[in-house]
Amino acid sequence: MSAAMGDDDGAVVVSCRAPINMAVLKYWGKRDERLVLPLHASLSLTLHVDCMASSITVAPGPDLAGDEMLLNGTPCDLDGNARLQAVLQACRRLSTKSESFTRQPIRLECRNDFPTAAGLASSASGLACLTSALMTFYSCRESFPGEATTIARQGSGSACRSMFGGFVTWEKGSDDATGHDSVARQFVDESHWSDLRVVILVVSSGEKEVGSTMGMRRSVETSELLAYRAGHVVEPRMQAFKSAIKQKDFGEFAELVMRDSNQFHAVCADTYPPVFYLNDVSHAIIDAVHAFNHDRIRAAYTFDAGPNACLFTREQDLPDLLSSMVEAFAPDDAGDRPTFVRDPLRLCPDLSSVRPRATRRHRHRVRQIIVTKGGPGPQISTKVVP
Amino acid sequence: MSAAMGDDDGAVVVSCRAPINMAVLKYWGKRDERLVLPLHASLSLTLHVDCMASSITVAPGPDLAGDEMLLNGTPCDLDGNARLQAVLQACRRLSTKSESFTRQPIRLECRNDFPTAAGLASSASGLACLTSALMTFYSCRESFPGEATTIARQGSGSACRSMFGGFVTWEKGSDDATGHDSVARQFVDESHWSDLRVVILVVSSGEKEVGSTMGMRRSVETSELLAYRAGHVVEPRMQAFKSAIKQKDFGEFAELVMRDSNQFHAVCADTYPPVFYLNDVSHAIIDAVHAFNHDRIRAAYTFDAGPNACLFTREQDLPDLLSSMVEAFAPDDAGDRPTFVRDPLRLCPDLSSVRPRATRRHRHRVRQIIVTKGGPGPQISTKVVP
Repeated sequence: MSAAMGDDDGAVVVSCRAPINMAVLKYWGKRDERLVLPLHASLSLTLHVDCMASSITVAPGPDLAGDEMLLNGTPCDLDGNARLQAVLQACRRLSTKSESFTRQPIRLECRNDFPTAAGLASSASGLACLTSALMTFYSCRESFPGEATTIARQGSGSACRSMFGGFVTWEKGSDDATGHDSVARQFVDESHWSDLRVVILVVSSGEKEVGSTMGMRRSVETSELLAYRAGHVVEPRMQAFKSAIKQKDFGEFAELVMRDSNQFHAVCADTYPPVFYLNDVSHAIIDAVHAFNHDRIRAAYTFDAGPNACLFTREQDLPDLLSSMVEAFAPDDAGDRPTFVRDPLRLCPDLSSVRPRATRRHRHRVRQIIVTKGGPGPQISTKVVP
Repeated sequence: MSAAMGDDDGAVVVSCRAPINMAVLKYWGKRDERLVLPLHASLSLTLHVDCMASSITVAPGPDLAGDEMLLNGTPCDLDGNARLQAVLQACRRLSTKSESFTRQPIRLECRNDFPTAAGLASSASGLACLTSALMTFYSCRESFPGEATTIARQGSGSACRSMFGGFVTWEKGSDDATGHDSVARQFVDESHWSDLRVVILVVSSGEKEVGSTMGMRRSVETSELLAYRAGHVVEPRMQAFKSAIKQKDFGEFAELVMRDSNQFHAVCADTYPPVFYLNDVSHAIIDAVHAFNHDRIRAAYTFDAGPNACLFTREQDLPDLLSSMVEAFAPDDAGDRPTFVRDPLRLCPDLSSVRPRATRRHRHRVRQIIVTKGGPGPQISTKVVP
């Protein structure tokens, strides 16, 4: 790739697609807001880039007056965005290209290919995408392993975990002066647990949510339970997670996933004023999953800072789980909308069996169900411009 | 009273009305289920008995085959109810009456005068009422101060706090063999903070709730955050509460009330499977109270094991608070229902000013607003039967 970039130092356009990730041991709380250093470690599964991803193309802009950025076709402010600048400047510093090249303006085109209705647009995939694209564009060389993840982290904390596929840890780190040891690492790649499946229930909110940066700041300042969680719960739970994932022990993994999601929302409730991300539909989904698990654990839920549910199950239980969820939560007109269940990776063998059967209590509140699985990290492609 | 009972040992009918109480430092979790010993101390305000109360009449039943009990006119099982038996047997043991009298069957008539729609029927007032009525009926003599509260406690934990008016503590105690030192004590009586007002918003649930006995058992078994709360949060918070109440510092008191309610519901969320007592309307009430407090704290919310809100405010802020809550939460037909706001103690000078004004988002979800204040403990009357 470096060779393909040639000597002219700029005739290359870099494109990147980067995945979102779903935390199973939740990140909540920064100990340093500028360096984005977390209160404690976290762990996530990177979701398949062919289902939901952010895309970025970086091209040289020798003719431009300054750097330019388009987001979903709309120009947006790159110069005034401190987080984006932190990433851009760090990549320029690590460049092995000529100084004249790195000083040249660039043109960034960014897109999210989330389903429009999803409400899942995450800064994690976007900032991992930006970091990966720029690291390649500038032919950066890391000065220590994982440095790229520390750059993505400063763009958006959880972005560091989208820099790898599979299960990824984000270490707490101890170097508060530089933050260099708060890196993300791949724990196992996406092929390790190949029959694991992910089902996302997109829940209408209707409520204005407290943004996660604001919410976690408030939790750090006011929740005694967060301090206890960070100091006493997370580390042993991380070890338990690693062991369950290593052994592909679904029952153990699923219980840990549910308990950690519950504890994260408990911390939000203990915050003052409290932050509630779950609504009545989220509560009903939790009840439905526990009902689905009545004889043995076949599914787990986790919720980020919003009402949307992310469920984990195994390949063998996917059709049953989808049937249960569609029956409980599909709107009455879902039968007319074949896109209510979206399965771009074709993971469910027979979607026709999971259509709604009866009138449901929570109709019109789950807008879409997305079926996916774990996947690889950012995907780079380069093109030499003639 | 003892004199009035005369020598014939049975010609007296005892009636009692006992109040509900609202915990401000919540009780959640037993360390001993049989003796009903709590994991930690708690603190409540006894609400006025003329607004919501349980009533019991105890009469001798020399003609009966066994003890009889009517609840709201319906016969119910007294013999098979372990909690009721614990109270009845303890009172018979402490009786100073003749053995022939205490062996005689009794007839109990119990009533709750909660508004029918309230969904607030509490075992606290009922068991405090039963204990008080029987203690008088049998002319019991306590073998240590507060023994009556330890009997009520074994009927229903929080009943011990309804044995006094005003602010009442329930001590954790340390004697796990007898539970004798887990007593309730009056901290200040109902005249201490005379301008404190209580507003209850009765919220429709529609969901089947997890009963509090089951819920707290599950929390004790599964929530690490409850263990932390019991061991590290409650004691300093109790001291802060006592200081705020002593000084009638409403801002401090109100913040403690809200934070403790939030933490209790955080513990419920951290329980596995989680228990959610708050619904979307409860969340909206919390937001509305924080909005009402935007410039300074004039109201506080607390929620027990259900979606109904209990708000605290001061006399001067009561009309404003009622107006805000009616505007936000009254159903559209509330203007036609003068009983939507129920104010039996006539605490709000002009209810006509607090009618709904606009279309509201959460209409039809708050069923009634009840205005009350702190009050005295159980009220006993005796009548000699000719």
